[in-house]
Amino acid sequence: MAVYTQVSAEALARFLAGFEVGELVSAKGIAEGVENSNYLVETTQDRFILTLYEKRVSAGDLPYFLALLDHLAATGLPVPPAIADREGRAIHTLEGRPACLIRFLPGVSLSHPTPAQALAAGDAMGAMHAAVADFDGHRDNSMGQATWRPLLDRCGASLDAIAPGLHADIAHVLTRIEADWPAHLDRCAIHADLFPDNVLMLGDRVTGLIDFYFACTDLRLYDLAVMHAAWSFDSTGRDHDAAVGDALIEGYSRHYPLTDDERGAFATLAAGACIRFTLSRAWDWLNTPADALVTRKDPLAFWRRLRVYDPNLASLLKTLA
Amino acid sequence: MAVYTQVSAEALARFLAGFEVGELVSAKGIAEGVENSNYLVETTQDRFILTLYEKRVSAGDLPYFLALLDHLAATGLPVPPAIADREGRAIHTLEGRPACLIRFLPGVSLSHPTPAQALAAGDAMGAMHAAVADFDGHRDNSMGQATWRPLLDRCGASLDAIAPGLHADIAHVLTRIEADWPAHLDRCAIHADLFPDNVLMLGDRVTGLIDFYFACTDLRLYDLAVMHAAWSFDSTGRDHDAAVGDALIEGYSRHYPLTDDERGAFATLAAGACIRFTLSRAWDWLNTPADALVTRKDPLAFWRRLRVYDPNLASLLKTLA
Repeated sequence: MAVYTQVSAEALARFLAGFEVGELVSAKGIAEGVENSNYLVETTQDRFILTLYEKRVSAGDLPYFLALLDHLAATGLPVPPAIADREGRAIHTLEGRPACLIRFLPGVSLSHPTPAQALAAGDAMGAMHAAVADFDGHRDNSMGQATWRPLLDRCGASLDAIAPGLHADIAHVLTRIEADWPAHLDRCAIHADLFPDNVLMLGDRVTGLIDFYFACTDLRLYDLAVMHAAWSFDSTGRDHDAAVGDALIEGYSRHYPLTDDERGAFATLAAGACIRFTLSRAWDWLNTPADALVTRKDPLAFWRRLRVYDPNLASLLKTLA
Repeated sequence: MAVYTQVSAEALARFLAGFEVGELVSAKGIAEGVENSNYLVETTQDRFILTLYEKRVSAGDLPYFLALLDHLAATGLPVPPAIADREGRAIHTLEGRPACLIRFLPGVSLSHPTPAQALAAGDAMGAMHAAVADFDGHRDNSMGQATWRPLLDRCGASLDAIAPGLHADIAHVLTRIEADWPAHLDRCAIHADLFPDNVLMLGDRVTGLIDFYFACTDLRLYDLAVMHAAWSFDSTGRDHDAAVGDALIEGYSRHYPLTDDERGAFATLAAGACIRFTLSRAWDWLNTPADALVTRKDPLAFWRRLRVYDPNLASLLKTLA
């Protein structure tokens, strides 16, 4: 959420000269995205987002992400493709970082989506999953279910500094999730991080799906579970808006109506999403230097959502009782 | 250089509804400006900069700044006026901060201006001074020459933590500047902070003068001295590009040719500018918490410029010898 790498106007103008995009008119560093540096760039022809990938995005994964963006954009979904330069290359190096020039999309990220907006967003996720039926790229989920136990172990007893008993409570929930995980459900390319931040909207219309840098091959319904956990709670995880959650599922169901099996598994998938974001935020919390430019996010905000997804289990936990 | 205050898309849409500017299309927090929060806002009609004033800009000074922007814009200079809402008000409150919606200007801030670009920028400053001949607003320079001694005293011996001997050296230079200060020269409304950051350009053309939040009534030629010190050195203050400095003065002279008296006083004014930025950066350096979002700027970068403006004096100083 900051500009980590400065690109001078002079360097940017030289970079753009390699593309058929016109001349540089304006460039503003924007506070957006997951630990990348982003500039909103205007040329005499169009507007773009210039992204410089900082350490969290591996250069080796970029071809997968860009192929997915291209595939989705080609089906007419509002997904921003990367722009190829005069020699056909979409992945570049700028100021020592991998860099892409990406088409700008209008729309704003909502802080408090309504059910009508959630309906449209759920519909957009269903359309996205339908569109990747013939996408043959593959990327393991670097934050998938199999990674949670090792991440819990790496966080270790330090977790109790966030809340006394948190390590044991997460271990307890994780054991349950591992036993119940519905690994037999459909898999496809998923976004895996479709928070309201990553959906651009105008009114009740979705105008952009962005920030695919956690995209991977995983359970299709896990993508919806992440979205449900991200969209239908306030930022503290204390207040649940069931109407927003229901609308997400209703919109999604236009493309993929949930089977009884899927309905039965949904709470486990959503509890998994809670574990995933609790652990990654806890890791960041414990390992972010106090002077970092990044604002640390409350690790407990996703943990508290377990009260909705597994109230019986939550009532037994020291940190949630 | 960060977004301190978050404005949700919903709150922004409500704010814009008070203006005749169309509907919200896009909003991106931008990393720009002196400790304000800025958003680049696009509506169905136009683009704007939304500025929320954080603690460094006093709400009481905003009427002066906006009157100056209006005055300069009315003369045809590329200065962005604040937009009045349907009730004629330009100063608002948003998220508890004073806030203004300001017209967006194209152009980029240069990191390494050429002499041709400096010529245009110096010319723009001269035109700005000519345009305020009939501007009757007044604001004392809160960072003017009379404030440097008290600021030096407030920094105190801590300065020697930046460089051993710095407090005594600044006191020595300041005594000389106080004795030589050309207080009899012309006064007018000046920008007082016209760094390359604050000049938008396209090629060799000035398309915007921005960030007037240090504007005040002070010596006209001091404005040019600040610009000279800001533009004609590298960011460390070690390398001087005399051709850029000469071009600034040449451009400015199209409007106000320098008299012999002014030429004689210029080095003192520029040395004063060096003291002003050395002291304010040193104060920030000594008082910025290590976990602040602000990147602290090297206080010695302006101090080193004294080697150019007063080489004989600099050679006697422990910190510059």
